[in-house]
Amino acid sequence: MSIRETLKYVVENVEGALAAMIMAYDGIPIDEIMVSQSEYDLQSLSVEYATVLKEIKRAVELVKAGAMEEVSIATTRTRVAFRVLNEDLFAVLIMTRDGNFGKGRYLLRLKAYDMLRDLA
Amino acid sequence: MSIRETLKYVVENVEGALAAMIMAYDGIPIDEIMVSQSEYDLQSLSVEYATVLKEIKRAVELVKAGAMEEVSIATTRTRVAFRVLNEDLFAVLIMTRDGNFGKGRYLLRLKAYDMLRDLA
Repeated sequence: MSIRETLKYVVENVEGALAAMIMAYDGIPIDEIMVSQSEYDLQSLSVEYATVLKEIKRAVELVKAGAMEEVSIATTRTRVAFRVLNEDLFAVLIMTRDGNFGKGRYLLRLKAYDMLRDLA
Repeated sequence: MSIRETLKYVVENVEGALAAMIMAYDGIPIDEIMVSQSEYDLQSLSVEYATVLKEIKRAVELVKAGAMEEVSIATTRTRVAFRVLNEDLFAVLIMTRDGNFGKGRYLLRLKAYDMLRDLA
């Protein structure tokens, strides 16, 4: 599977998924799959969250809590899961509030290795 | 149950829990329960994470993703769950990497109402 196919697989197999993407910490998307009927500005959402993720990474390193692996943010409208791939990149899955958050995080973790291999 | 008793209940009923606390966004702890044998500097960890949480709150509001409800951060050494209580306060549960993350997040959510009531 290509990166795009893997992202597509995740989006199609998680109930409530709106988008899946690979991003760099500077907010630049490497690849992405979006569900067209989304009411959210997913692009700005992911860019804003990339900035936040960089802050979390900094805090985690500062308090010597090891290396960041996964971050999830649940709001009254969305569920977002981030899975760290390497020093530069991470995968993001954006879901609706009632999306299958557990399965989404599971599939991101499961597919992290595939995504990394396909990025090499 | 007092706030402290509720925090104690959470820590004692989640495998791998290291500390539970109620904090303000400025990093000031309102109340806390720590497991004494922890190897981490939980105080600085929670203060750093409070700063990050404030950043996430800002980002969530900026992208109109509703109101922040829960944030979780998994690293190679720790699992930390944050549950928003109101505009000013949130509950934090810090666990070891192999702690019961699902149960920890569940108990935080379950006890959020009790904690809010006891803070009033």
